[in-house]
Amino acid sequence: MQIAEPLQRAIDELNKLPTIGRKTALRLALYILKNKEENVKALTDALSALKTDLRFCEKCFNISVEAECEICKSPKRDNTSLCVVEEPSDVIAIEKSNEYNGLYHVLGGVLSPLSGKGADDLTITQLVKRVEQGEIKELILALNPDTEGETTALYIARLLQSRNLKITRIARGLPVGGDLEFADQATIGRAFIGRIKIE
Amino acid sequence: MQIAEPLQRAIDELNKLPTIGRKTALRLALYILKNKEENVKALTDALSALKTDLRFCEKCFNISVEAECEICKSPKRDNTSLCVVEEPSDVIAIEKSNEYNGLYHVLGGVLSPLSGKGADDLTITQLVKRVEQGEIKELILALNPDTEGETTALYIARLLQSRNLKITRIARGLPVGGDLEFADQATIGRAFIGRIKIE
Repeated sequence: MQIAEPLQRAIDELNKLPTIGRKTALRLALYILKNKEENVKALTDALSALKTDLRFCEKCFNISVEAECEICKSPKRDNTSLCVVEEPSDVIAIEKSNEYNGLYHVLGGVLSPLSGKGADDLTITQLVKRVEQGEIKELILALNPDTEGETTALYIARLLQSRNLKITRIARGLPVGGDLEFADQATIGRAFIGRIKIE
Repeated sequence: MQIAEPLQRAIDELNKLPTIGRKTALRLALYILKNKEENVKALTDALSALKTDLRFCEKCFNISVEAECEICKSPKRDNTSLCVVEEPSDVIAIEKSNEYNGLYHVLGGVLSPLSGKGADDLTITQLVKRVEQGEIKELILALNPDTEGETTALYIARLLQSRNLKITRIARGLPVGGDLEFADQATIGRAFIGRIKIE
């Protein structure tokens, strides 16, 4: 038996999403099929609205409803500090920590020769322009602690080092609540190198 | 910072789906946000089509494009054999095995006093009617091997036992490719009880 075409199509489309395999796609499709029409409409409307009602902030490239995002517009944020991240999801994660009150700059990825991503595919030109305006005093590189993240951080640091700017990167070390015994060598090594004096 | 309203709404809607937690919902929403408009439209159209282009077969309650499903309409299927399953996904799974060529009857669930599902919430009345038409010679109960599945199988068997009908249930035993050493007691027990002579 062939699976009915509309069902097969929904499975194929769901299967294109990250983390959703064919079995989960089938399960989701059957769940949606059994669901009430108004609930399905609420779901599809919300997904369509992601494209129609959201855009990227003209200044920092974070997700935004208006041309300029809430963070860029806010008078309460410290506009001398700029935190460079890979993706909008990193902004959400950092905001949740409540430890940072400056502005952001979303690169839209990292330099990755393997997947053909160069400096022109990221918002690096726009970052340089923001720095050139002169208000920013500290640039915090909060990229992922992997090879591509490190390379991109180094690239940006080299590009902007001649300017009158403090460039930092967020600390590496043992995750809070983590267990030293089960941490990998590289993390323990970084934690020792980055040790700080207790005052 | 508040997450932008359209993004929050998409996360909430995705989070209602089975197997999708808040973190996955965020990841999916950001993926969709970054995706091309035509791809997002293909996804939402496919999901809407599940409700508009599909229905349940009038005869067997399987998923169908037309009033009667492909299997019920097919002249190649053995209409003296009827396999009772819980959900449309079970039909798909059994069809993939290529071991069954009869018709199906989808109950739409199992008897479950805890979640308030009684005989009237399932398609049992319609099943009895199909049996009463007299063509069916064997009724195969292919319900899940859990307490509710067993109870429902027993209920249906009792309800129809006075009729001139062979009632069977699919075998329990070690799954193919499984390891006896790691099988649970109940499965090993069932495998012994259901042992068959090698001829």
